[in-house]
Order: sequence, then structure tokens, then C-alpha cells
Amino acid sequence: MTEKTTNVAAIRDAMPAVTRHVYLNTGTCGPLPRPVEETMRAIAEAELDDGRIVPERYLINSDLKRQAREEVAALLGCSPDNIALTRHTTDGINIGVLGINWQPGDEIITTDMEHPGGQAPLFTVARRYGVTIRTARLGDGGGDVVGAIARLITPRTRLIMLSHLTWNTGAILPVGAVTELAHQHGILVVVDGAQSAGSIPVNVTELGVDVYAIPGQKWLCGPEGTGAVYIADNALDILQLTVAGYSSLAMPHGIEPIGGYLLPKATAERFEVGGMNMPAIAGQAASIRWIRTTVGFPWAFERIQQLGDYAWQSLSELDGVHVITPRHCMAGLVCFTVDGCDPAALVQALWQEANVIVRFISHPYCIRLSAGFYNTEEDIDQLIDAIRRLRKHCSPSTAHA
Amino acid sequence: MTEKTTNVAAIRDAMPAVTRHVYLNTGTCGPLPRPVEETMRAIAEAELDDGRIVPERYLINSDLKRQAREEVAALLGCSPDNIALTRHTTDGINIGVLGINWQPGDEIITTDMEHPGGQAPLFTVARRYGVTIRTARLGDGGGDVVGAIARLITPRTRLIMLSHLTWNTGAILPVGAVTELAHQHGILVVVDGAQSAGSIPVNVTELGVDVYAIPGQKWLCGPEGTGAVYIADNALDILQLTVAGYSSLAMPHGIEPIGGYLLPKATAERFEVGGMNMPAIAGQAASIRWIRTTVGFPWAFERIQQLGDYAWQSLSELDGVHVITPRHCMAGLVCFTVDGCDPAALVQALWQEANVIVRFISHPYCIRLSAGFYNTEEDIDQLIDAIRRLRKHCSPSTAHA
Repeated sequence: MTEKTTNVAAIRDAMPAVTRHVYLNTGTCGPLPRPVEETMRAIAEAELDDGRIVPERYLINSDLKRQAREEVAALLGCSPDNIALTRHTTDGINIGVLGINWQPGDEIITTDMEHPGGQAPLFTVARRYGVTIRTARLGDGGGDVVGAIARLITPRTRLIMLSHLTWNTGAILPVGAVTELAHQHGILVVVDGAQSAGSIPVNVTELGVDVYAIPGQKWLCGPEGTGAVYIADNALDILQLTVAGYSSLAMPHGIEPIGGYLLPKATAERFEVGGMNMPAIAGQAASIRWIRTTVGFPWAFERIQQLGDYAWQSLSELDGVHVITPRHCMAGLVCFTVDGCDPAALVQALWQEANVIVRFISHPYCIRLSAGFYNTEEDIDQLIDAIRRLRKHCSPSTAHA
Repeated sequence: MTEKTTNVAAIRDAMPAVTRHVYLNTGTCGPLPRPVEETMRAIAEAELDDGRIVPERYLINSDLKRQAREEVAALLGCSPDNIALTRHTTDGINIGVLGINWQPGDEIITTDMEHPGGQAPLFTVARRYGVTIRTARLGDGGGDVVGAIARLITPRTRLIMLSHLTWNTGAILPVGAVTELAHQHGILVVVDGAQSAGSIPVNVTELGVDVYAIPGQKWLCGPEGTGAVYIADNALDILQLTVAGYSSLAMPHGIEPIGGYLLPKATAERFEVGGMNMPAIAGQAASIRWIRTTVGFPWAFERIQQLGDYAWQSLSELDGVHVITPRHCMAGLVCFTVDGCDPAALVQALWQEANVIVRFISHPYCIRLSAGFYNTEEDIDQLIDAIRRLRKHCSPSTAHA
């Protein structure tokens, strides 16, 4: 990767947080690029000075939302008409899962790799509507995922919810193959794209999925409180509105809802509900645009892959370190344990003693690093050196055993 | 109000937008105070420079959310444990309306004064669960509201949804009396507080309501994309989670949801779902705090009332102007028509020719002004002068008749 050194230096220069820390936790929250912060500040200052109700602002705001939808659509390979802006990945999963009129005895298939934000909406429909949740146990995520899911399909299965890239082991799951199987049985597929959007190439049209939910603030390095969801045409026909508001409605001049009737928008925008923080929306569009135009997504994906592999290799070579992430289907997340070291304690020591930011995961109880496109091999080397140095001070796992 | 001139000048000086325009549309979006923008910028800059994943930021973010809940709770007269932060009023209404396990034939009572954002969740449950919506027709909102609602109660009525201050006629509805009646029949009351929070004194405990939804960006002059909802203890016991996520869950160290089970938080915070834009949350707390400590809510409420009354009186004295707002139960919203003038055309002329910002309403088709605590009698006088000057150029209503 030496030929890209200049490039990387310029990228890192635009992201102040990555030079202040060994920033290896984009899987939780990415570093903000300076141009994104400048875009947000410009909107905030205009709102302060000129107020937010001058007629021009409605047009500006509408245009900012359109830009954000278009950037997401270009990233995911679909039409902007199939994109709704959300607060986070979880919102998008909720839109998919809650959009079905569930009947008692209906079934959902999910996996044992899902984030609490993905599990929570499943819980809701299980509790409220008597839906059965069937959980595919996938180990590290590198095995026969399609087979594990196929065994759980019954005539009552209506939805499969799974991650594209597992947050807890870093495995890329075969979402396309699962979708093909699901559609043979008339089952909707809702995908948690929290760790995939911006870290691996994603084309929702080729994958064929029905709902694909993504965050703004992780690998896409945008503001917190932003996200988006892809709703395929087929799913737009099927999914009912759940949370609805002003932005859900088709309201040509003078047409308003009345007495319990309303006309929803024709596009996925109907799931947007209501007012949004415009500096954040501007930042969401700006961060994707910045990666697309200044960094380049193909280059970012390749670099994340290479750095992830470099981390995998470097960690594997350490005595007593066990890498959980399956190497044949991974990208920038690498999960591992260190013999005799409590993961939470080691994460804290890495932060306090070495300025290295990683996180621990509860299930499986381990340490996770995220290799971003802005990281360097030196960042990984610093992590490795710090583990060598600090492991002897770490107590063995107890609290999370 | 002459003795407060200094005070008002200082307030106006802190709100740049109100000196650039005749800013009479807080009912849509209030002007931002400079200290609020400074608070948001400080958080944004810290996030840029230091990253958003250093452990301190989790504590700072958690504290910012706590501050925002506490400011809202103090404003509404309740415990912070009964407050959830939302994106907007509509979110809070959805939490209330969607939280019931609706059965076909169940009934909801609402009024013909509700905003589309309040009507939309009613539509959702009507369509999806076969719920009947019964609409009380309230005229201008100044008549026998309790009687109009009482006539619609049946053994199947489970919920009443109404505004505290109607967005389309500016009437304060007797929410306390409606709630007393509702609770005699075991009916939940969900209140749209979009125009009341920050414009009139509100004590949810005294009102006895079950759910009270408010925005951040209108009379409280905070950032867009912020709001809050009060959920009474009784409603916390009854309302089911609808949209759920990581923030809904009680997750003491190492306890995570599994296989379709989860443990929700004990407080209203369970309705907060997931990640939020922290600059916006900081701004939400800062704007309420600024009004509370620098402006003073009692003074703000009194001034809004006085300016509203001044506007009502001034408009009434104009030939051919008809004020719709019932004078005996109003605050800062004043709705009116001008003979021979299309409301939308006059609103546009007021903006383009006189730098006066008001809005039109579709039902009833009229013009609405909002008198904020930062406004002056001169602002109202400028509106009156501009109407005198511009009305002769306005065409009569056609498009919205």
C-alpha cells in the first residue's frame, strides 16, 4: 500500500480524531472528516442568522434530504425512491419488522449473531403478536449459514432478519444466497447493514433483499443520529406504515388527511415521519460524498480489507491470541481473545496506557478492532505492541465468563 | 410592557433571526438563541477533534441526555423518569397511539383540529387493526369541547387524542376536563403539545394526562429533530414498546437480549430506541435552560399572552379582517382572514414585500401569526401596516376555497 501513502496522509489530515488516537473502533462510531463538520456548521449558522422559516429554507432542506437519499442510493446501487432517511440502523430494521400485520403463530428466522438493536424489534412482535422467533446458531459465521437457516423454514415463516457483516465476529454472511432461498418460500428478508455499509461493496439490487438498514455514523463517518433504509419495490407494496407523520403523507397543495384517512407518499420517503435536524442531514450527505469523491469507495473497500487481513495475520502470530473472525469471509472487523486477559480490562488498559481505542463484545466475550480506510499498518502495529506490553497486567476473565 | 424593554432588547439581541425579519412564525419553528448554537458547536467541535468513541464521550452523552430530560421534566412538572427524548411531537403521539394492542372495533376519539402529524398514527391503527376513528367537530375550539367529546364515548373507546392548543385556530382546549372524563371511562389520553409547550404553562401531573408529546424547535426555540414525550406511570404500565432498540433495553454489564427476549428499561427512556445526534440533544437542553434562566418561563408565558391579545385586538380593528381565534381561550397563535385576499397569496406578499413571516393554514383556510416572547408590539404593528398596504394587490381566494 506504499503508493497510496500521500493519499492516506491527506485523508488522515482531514480527520483530526485519527491522529489524536489509535482509532480502531469505526464499528462503533467513525471519525468525522473536517469538511463534514464544516458543512454542518454552515447550515447551523445560516439557521441561526436567518431563521428556519424563511421560504427558501424549505427548499434548501428538501434539497438536502434529496442529496442524502441520492448519496445513499448511489452507495447501495438502487433508486433514491427506494431510500428513506432514518436515525439509525435500528429504525430501518423496525420499519421492516413492524411493517407486517403479524398473526399469532407466524414465524421469524434470525441468527444468534444479531445486535441488540436488531433483536429488539423481533422481541416486540414476539411479545405483542404471538410471533415465534427461530434462531439459527451460526458459530463464528464462517460456516454453512444458508443450511442453518434453511433448516428453520416452515410454512409459517414470513421474515428473515440477519446481518450482512456480523458485529460480534466480523463475518460476512451470504445475504444474497439467503435471499434467494427466502424468496423461493415467499419470505421477506430484512438486513442489518450496520457493519457492511461503507466497509464492503453492497449492491442491494443484486443481493435482491427487501429491506437493507444502514447507519450514517460508522463506516460512512457521518453524524450520529443519521441512517437510511432501502425498501425494495416489492417491500414498498407489502410493508404497512408503522410510525407515521407529516412526512409520510402525499400532500399536494391543500390536500390533507381527514378523519382517519390519509394518502401515503408513493416512494420510500413515506417512512421518514417528520422534521429532521438539517445540519445532521447535510452532514450525512457530505460524509458519503466526501468518501465517494475524495477517498473513493473502491479504494476504501480494498484498503479496509487489506488492513483487516493485516490485523488478522498480526494477531494470529501472537502467542496465546485467538482470532475468532473467519478469515475467508471478513473485512475490517477482527475479533480475538488473549489468554489470561479479561477482554473488558484489556480494552480499558489499551485506552488508558496506550491511547488505543478498540471495544469488547459480550457474546462471544472478546475484543474487537475495526480497521478503517484512514488507518495505517502502524496503527495495527501499535495495537499489537500495546497488547504485548499490557497483557501481563491483565486479570483473567471472570465477570463475563 | 414598557418596563421590560431592556430585557426584550437583550433577548432579541441573542436571537439574530428576529432582528433580520418580522419573525411571527414560532408556531412552525422558533428562532435559535445564540448560546444554543454555541453549545451545539462546542459539542460538534469536540466530536471532530477527539472522536466520538473515547470512553469519556459515553459519559458526556449520557449526561447530555439526562440534562435534556431534566429540563423537559421541570418545564412539564413531572419526574425525568417519565420523559423520553424524541425527534418531534409526532414521535411522542405515535408512542402513545401505537402502544396499545388494538382489536378490531376498538375506537379512538379525536378532533377535527388535529395536525397531520397527529392524525397519521390514528390512520395507521385504523387501517391496520380495524380501529374506528370518531371525530369531534369543535368549530373554532372555543365552545363546549368536553360535551362534543363526551357524546362520542362508547364502551369501545380506548383512547382520546387531542391538542392542548390547536395549531389551526389557536384555541386552548380543556385538556384537564377531557382527561377527567376520559379516566372515568378507563380511556387513555394522548395530547399533542406542539403549540402549548413553551407558549402556555403546562403541568402534566395536574392535567392528569397519560401521554404528552412536545417538540423542541417551536416555542422552546431548540434544534429541529428534537422533541420529548411525557409518559405517566399508569401509561408506562400499559403502553407496549413499538419501535425498540438498544436504548430501550436494560443492559447491566453483560446482560443482553437473546432469542427474542429482552428486558426493557424501567423508565420512559425505554422509548428512546437508539443513537442520537449529540449536538442537537445538547442544544435541546440548552434552549430550555436558556429560556428558563435568562428569559424566565412565567415572564415568557405572560408576554406571549399579551402580544397575542394585542395582535387579536389590532387585527379585529381592521376593516374586513375576521379573527378566527377564540379570544377567551388563546395564547400566542392568532388566525384570521382578510376579505378579498387569498391567504396563501397574502402570506407570500407579506414575506416578499414586507419581510414579515407568517403562514397560511388549509383548514380553516386562513393566515396564522405566532407571537413569541421575543416579539414586540412593533412587530405586530408592522404586520398590520403591511396588511393594509398589500391587501389591495391580493386576489380573492380560489385555489383553497
